[in-house]
Amino acid sequence: MNYLSDKAKGMKPYVAGIQPEGGGWIKLNTNENPYPPSPKVAAALREAEASELRLYPNADSASLCEAIAGNLGIGAENVFAGNGSDEVLALAYQAFFSGKQNVLTPDISYGFYPVWNQMYEVSATYVPLRDDYSIRAADYKGSNGVIIANPNAPTGIALGLPEIEEITAANPSGVVMVDEAYIDFADVRSAVALIGKYENLLVVRTFSKSHSLAGLRVGFAVGGRRLIEALRMMKDSFNSYPLGRLPQMLAKAAIEDAGYWEDTRLRIIRTREETAARLRGMGYNVLGSGANFLFMECGDAKGIYENLLAGRILVRYWEKHRIDRFLRVTVGLDSEMEEFIRCIGKLTKPR
Amino acid sequence: MNYLSDKAKGMKPYVAGIQPEGGGWIKLNTNENPYPPSPKVAAALREAEASELRLYPNADSASLCEAIAGNLGIGAENVFAGNGSDEVLALAYQAFFSGKQNVLTPDISYGFYPVWNQMYEVSATYVPLRDDYSIRAADYKGSNGVIIANPNAPTGIALGLPEIEEITAANPSGVVMVDEAYIDFADVRSAVALIGKYENLLVVRTFSKSHSLAGLRVGFAVGGRRLIEALRMMKDSFNSYPLGRLPQMLAKAAIEDAGYWEDTRLRIIRTREETAARLRGMGYNVLGSGANFLFMECGDAKGIYENLLAGRILVRYWEKHRIDRFLRVTVGLDSEMEEFIRCIGKLTKPR
Repeated sequence: MNYLSDKAKGMKPYVAGIQPEGGGWIKLNTNENPYPPSPKVAAALREAEASELRLYPNADSASLCEAIAGNLGIGAENVFAGNGSDEVLALAYQAFFSGKQNVLTPDISYGFYPVWNQMYEVSATYVPLRDDYSIRAADYKGSNGVIIANPNAPTGIALGLPEIEEITAANPSGVVMVDEAYIDFADVRSAVALIGKYENLLVVRTFSKSHSLAGLRVGFAVGGRRLIEALRMMKDSFNSYPLGRLPQMLAKAAIEDAGYWEDTRLRIIRTREETAARLRGMGYNVLGSGANFLFMECGDAKGIYENLLAGRILVRYWEKHRIDRFLRVTVGLDSEMEEFIRCIGKLTKPR
Repeated sequence: MNYLSDKAKGMKPYVAGIQPEGGGWIKLNTNENPYPPSPKVAAALREAEASELRLYPNADSASLCEAIAGNLGIGAENVFAGNGSDEVLALAYQAFFSGKQNVLTPDISYGFYPVWNQMYEVSATYVPLRDDYSIRAADYKGSNGVIIANPNAPTGIALGLPEIEEITAANPSGVVMVDEAYIDFADVRSAVALIGKYENLLVVRTFSKSHSLAGLRVGFAVGGRRLIEALRMMKDSFNSYPLGRLPQMLAKAAIEDAGYWEDTRLRIIRTREETAARLRGMGYNVLGSGANFLFMECGDAKGIYENLLAGRILVRYWEKHRIDRFLRVTVGLDSEMEEFIRCIGKLTKPR
């Protein structure tokens, strides 16, 4: 089309997992939490006043940022909230990576990174994962920026805090972004512990996974004051009010129920480990996961994906070098995993 | 800061009006609606299920776009919804203006346009308004793109549909964006009537003003199918899910109450005209407004702004060439306008 900007011409957008309408699906494709959000979220929703929606929200989500900061034991000046972690990451790309050379990211990771690399004209170097699909920290040094997911997606493999620190220290000229969407399901420590020590570290989190709020759209970044100020400036150069009144209020309510969050995340971890053990017992190669999904090797993964889809079981498959024999399977309810195992056992022999 | 991208260095963000915490303010500074949203919005909010927030929303806000299309008598393929009209405009900038020369916009208009021009590397030509602050349609021709607000901000002056058509026809090589945030308060027809005739026309609207939903963050664009597809592609290159489940549901509920919308917008128009007549009767120059605000000339506007602020009355003032003797005053409740008139009469003599 003639009207398109050069930026828009040839742009290859991200393709998210299917969001089916209606019921009857076993939905294990976009890493949603199988449990509802905290009862405190439901209570806050019932107390919400429609009349207040006539007024703009707080432009910086100040109260929510304070709650997040309190929860993490840091200052509110170290927190930036946005319309899902994808928006937060995209703003961080524009603030810190836009137009740069030599930004490092794994060859296999979250599928939005290559899209943002194109969108924001970043010359990224895609660093191969090891043969066992883990990130080798020593490969990330001397760059103008690093973006990694920890735990990584879609592998689920988590790096320990010492390796995150090694990467952060080895790239002092660039911002090291650690996308911790799934960290609450891992047995490693969050890089939030390092933000006082490294001014080039930005940790990005979401309410979509461990807080069961994918439909609310709230994510946040944690980092040094100057990185957070830069994010706020980019936000104010794009959209002053990215988070509505309801997301600010309901995300805050979710934080306030630490007990529920702990209970549900432990249930998901237990289901994940039981499912992985059963699949391994059947002979499948299942990578060790620190996330709320499993990445399993199963031969004709594409065919199996399509057969599962025909049976209204949704998982995720990518026709991509190195991972085209794998399926990514979200950890759902125990009953959903039971049905998934029953179906996959009928469809395929391991390897 | 060393870490900033070239894009971020020197970026001058938009400065939104003050959003005070707590009560006791007469808030006439950010053009919010003084009436609450429709009772149907309140009912939909009470019926909202927190448990559904665990799932991602529809990525294209399909059901909301259908409702908007039905309301406007167009096809759902002609509607794109986003996180407030600012996000919609910023995505449209990236899709159609990014990196281009010779994009035309008035010298006095919405303050976000110069910010996006910088952010998306647009070489804009700022076309002077006439001495009476109206847009001269004949000045807009042969460009690579046009962005105007209609009614314009902060003047409130509306262009008729024939002039919008003249501009659209005179710029066939670029997209003509008409930002109709305030159109529901004007006595001119919306450019939505022209979208079937001109494939280069994009009309942008919001739920923040006439639907009383500034705190919800929903805006939308209306245009030909190919422009809408380009917006969707830019959205999917930035953030797949810009609108949460609650905004999609509640904006739809607002549309369904045409009677309430009509009643409140007519009340605001009546209050606007009564307030303008009284101010003119006191000797002030008040521009003719098709919006939910008045733009009035009052000598030492900055001093008056500060005095009103000290009395907890918030209006908007810009220290900017051609308009630094004006205040922009949102149309509030009748009682709020009464108090505003009482205070301004004490603070200043006209001109």
